[in-house]
Amino acid sequence: MMKRYAVIVAGGSGTRMGADVPKQFLVVKNQPVLMHTIETFHRFDEQMELIVVLPQDQIAYWDQLCKTYHFSIQHRVIAGGETRFHSVKNGLSLVKEPALVGIHDGVRPLVSSETLQRCYHHAEALGNAIPVIDAFESVRHLGDKASKALDRSKIKLVQTPQVFHSDLLLRAYEVDFNEKFTDDASVVEASGHIIHLVAGNRENIKITTPLDLKIAELFLESFF
Amino acid sequence: MMKRYAVIVAGGSGTRMGADVPKQFLVVKNQPVLMHTIETFHRFDEQMELIVVLPQDQIAYWDQLCKTYHFSIQHRVIAGGETRFHSVKNGLSLVKEPALVGIHDGVRPLVSSETLQRCYHHAEALGNAIPVIDAFESVRHLGDKASKALDRSKIKLVQTPQVFHSDLLLRAYEVDFNEKFTDDASVVEASGHIIHLVAGNRENIKITTPLDLKIAELFLESFF
Repeated sequence: MMKRYAVIVAGGSGTRMGADVPKQFLVVKNQPVLMHTIETFHRFDEQMELIVVLPQDQIAYWDQLCKTYHFSIQHRVIAGGETRFHSVKNGLSLVKEPALVGIHDGVRPLVSSETLQRCYHHAEALGNAIPVIDAFESVRHLGDKASKALDRSKIKLVQTPQVFHSDLLLRAYEVDFNEKFTDDASVVEASGHIIHLVAGNRENIKITTPLDLKIAELFLESFF
Repeated sequence: MMKRYAVIVAGGSGTRMGADVPKQFLVVKNQPVLMHTIETFHRFDEQMELIVVLPQDQIAYWDQLCKTYHFSIQHRVIAGGETRFHSVKNGLSLVKEPALVGIHDGVRPLVSSETLQRCYHHAEALGNAIPVIDAFESVRHLGDKASKALDRSKIKLVQTPQVFHSDLLLRAYEVDFNEKFTDDASVVEASGHIIHLVAGNRENIKITTPLDLKIAELFLESFF
């Protein structure tokens, strides 16, 4: 089995939550969201190397939080960059090749161990794998003059972790930043690779709004 | 102001929930989901005509539920058809033109009065209006050989109610059924009209899985 990494990117400043505290630090079920996320990966594979990417000005606060909460899971912390793309790139600088590298949103604590298993397992075999779920809503595409219905059965919503062989990922991240890069799969795809899709889990939401936080709370309290 | 209708379509059989009870009849906060949905429309506009479309074999059960729960909001019930398209068509047969007609999923009890206001108000002025929200996830399109990242800023997820002038809607529904019709907007669009988008509300979820039911429960208990 290849050596496994998780690069957990937590760059949020909290504006969309209407909160002063960045969303990765909001407390649900007795500890900050980001600690739940780290725990989820550690529970899945205790040998995995964990790299946490945080804005420079939040690192001292995070260290303090880890002391306050007696958080003992080993992880390295590195400062992020201007955009998610730059933050991931900084995180990748700590990866020792060859390895299997999963990039994960720090505010997705509800990823299931089955999803993690599917992503790392298929990525090891195929070079990459990302978790997706069906769109339960109808989907429209905005054009210049009008929007247009898309065929929902052809649409997938993308989650994380997005897992890649390190050579593929590090080479892809050598390109210049492009605004169209909304995730790591789009970066690797731009370098000419086909992206492999595996099933995600629907509760693996990205905590972005107060509603999401309530949902995460409900789930962490019920099932974890 | 034009006369307003809501055609509330509840065709679920409950299979996706893993429950024996169709999801529109599942009880949250003291009554079946469908009663919450009807109440939401009635609270928004007490003068609105409410039409509920149910599978033929659930109508007697629904009547019984209404008695059991002392549910007193006036509404008419009509049997649905083979698909959602046919069910809506049956519901429309009870509409007296001219009118403003909103088609709504019976399992969306959390639509806000602001969303309802935006939909009915803009539809009256523009001929139609449907509520949409941003995609918070990256979005991929499945092709024949590979999937491809879509520009997320151009993607909208569609909710209900989808509101139309009755002439537009009834004329559009005269076409033959097509599998690509996932909602009413796609039917009206196929008849040559541009669809107008207004802001939905994010908690206006379609209750499809046990997770959704938990979320709905949380919200109905907290905010309604």
